[in-house]
Amino acid sequence: MNIGIIGLGLMGGSLAKALKKYSLAKKIYGYARSEKSKNEIIELNLVDELTDIDTMKKNCDLIILAIPVDNIISILPEFLDINKNTTIMDLGSTKEFIIKSVPSTIRKNFIAAHPMTGTEKSGPKAAIDNLYEGNTVVLCNLEDNDNLHVNRAFRLFQEIGMRIVVMDANEHDIHACYMSHLPHAISFSLANTVMNHEDPKSILALAAGGFKDMSRVAKSSPNMWTDIFKQNRKNLLKAIDQFESHMKEVREMVQNEDYEDLKMWMAKANSLHEIL
Amino acid sequence: MNIGIIGLGLMGGSLAKALKKYSLAKKIYGYARSEKSKNEIIELNLVDELTDIDTMKKNCDLIILAIPVDNIISILPEFLDINKNTTIMDLGSTKEFIIKSVPSTIRKNFIAAHPMTGTEKSGPKAAIDNLYEGNTVVLCNLEDNDNLHVNRAFRLFQEIGMRIVVMDANEHDIHACYMSHLPHAISFSLANTVMNHEDPKSILALAAGGFKDMSRVAKSSPNMWTDIFKQNRKNLLKAIDQFESHMKEVREMVQNEDYEDLKMWMAKANSLHEIL
Repeated sequence: MNIGIIGLGLMGGSLAKALKKYSLAKKIYGYARSEKSKNEIIELNLVDELTDIDTMKKNCDLIILAIPVDNIISILPEFLDINKNTTIMDLGSTKEFIIKSVPSTIRKNFIAAHPMTGTEKSGPKAAIDNLYEGNTVVLCNLEDNDNLHVNRAFRLFQEIGMRIVVMDANEHDIHACYMSHLPHAISFSLANTVMNHEDPKSILALAAGGFKDMSRVAKSSPNMWTDIFKQNRKNLLKAIDQFESHMKEVREMVQNEDYEDLKMWMAKANSLHEIL
Repeated sequence: MNIGIIGLGLMGGSLAKALKKYSLAKKIYGYARSEKSKNEIIELNLVDELTDIDTMKKNCDLIILAIPVDNIISILPEFLDINKNTTIMDLGSTKEFIIKSVPSTIRKNFIAAHPMTGTEKSGPKAAIDNLYEGNTVVLCNLEDNDNLHVNRAFRLFQEIGMRIVVMDANEHDIHACYMSHLPHAISFSLANTVMNHEDPKSILALAAGGFKDMSRVAKSSPNMWTDIFKQNRKNLLKAIDQFESHMKEVREMVQNEDYEDLKMWMAKANSLHEIL
């Protein structure tokens, strides 16, 4: 099987590494726009050949869109003339808006996937060997796909060591909002709270594990995350409101010195870890 | 030097392990209240002898209070008759309220320390070898201490591999609020947001690194953290308000679809990592 990867940053580059590690592709084609990225991809030897989209369409059985979610939407028209046996798959963090944007003529070919993994880094140099292994990938609305493409996706993710979860795009977008999009909004806010202090340097001199963990994802790419917030806007607004009601609650309990209630509220938060 | 440790949970137990590792005490005495803790301390061989506070006062050069911040306050009267060459030191996460509560007769003996390290775990079994090494300890208001005690504290923390920072208790409480107390309030709120959903299990099935990191400290002990929030109440309320203004800002930008502003706001958050 020849595989084409469009975008060779953290997600695409790491996938190329996994494909090589498990010898899953006869040939890996790559596509990147910027000269800087192209040079890094060559230097890191991420793919067998850097090429254009037309060559990919001609030679690949599976083409993977590992680019920011808005770019996934805008590149779709390029694939209108795709062969019916060629699978197109996106790895975007939102699913409903992307699926709705897929032209009906290629809907059967288009696998909507979201590997629930990542780091705060981006670009080809962020690619790592084991990004996918042991993690979960969500596949959405597979009832609209041809079996050929579904099977191809299942085998690929199984072979790179992922746990596959199937769900409706709408449900995915809600869950991903709580597990990823809301935490990003919070982490960016926490980082900005400290950066707006008159002397962030002295404060950050005391940073330990807790703060470092909670501010880590505030390193993430603004371009990528603006698009994700945009595409999952409705769910994000709702999740922020729910989170805000809890922040209001803790503020009130501290303000009113309701320490017994505060203790119970913290104990309830503890219970999350009976599940996680 | 004989050292007594009151409370042998994460902080006290890990300190006992470090003292042993570097052979810094002739003898380590321990004190714990509950039978369960005592049994665990013996089983883990954390100290040379479990004893009472009177014996500690008689035999120890340095007595360390490694107990929750409210318990530090309530145990202070026990030390009113301490020898002037005996150092008492607390490891609490707040400093101003504790220092204000120290009886003036023993103020010269009392070293206010806050090692900026920890995990979400508690109890003797949470004790680990390398909790302190490479991390920062803050010592406050040392101008009120006798040199004998200051030097003892400096040598102890240096020898277990800590970076020592000296500051005013008021400044410490503000900084610790941003780096630790506010992040805890946020993490508890995030955990409660998910736990209040109708189906937390399905959502948490998709938890990846970002959410796991951000909810980790929501495992922390409600007893311990209620006391910390209580003692640092004023700073915490202020920090929550600042954080909330950023949450309001991101919510408004998403609501109003101000995506260019959102991108700049995220980029500002990114800049934290030029310092950290």
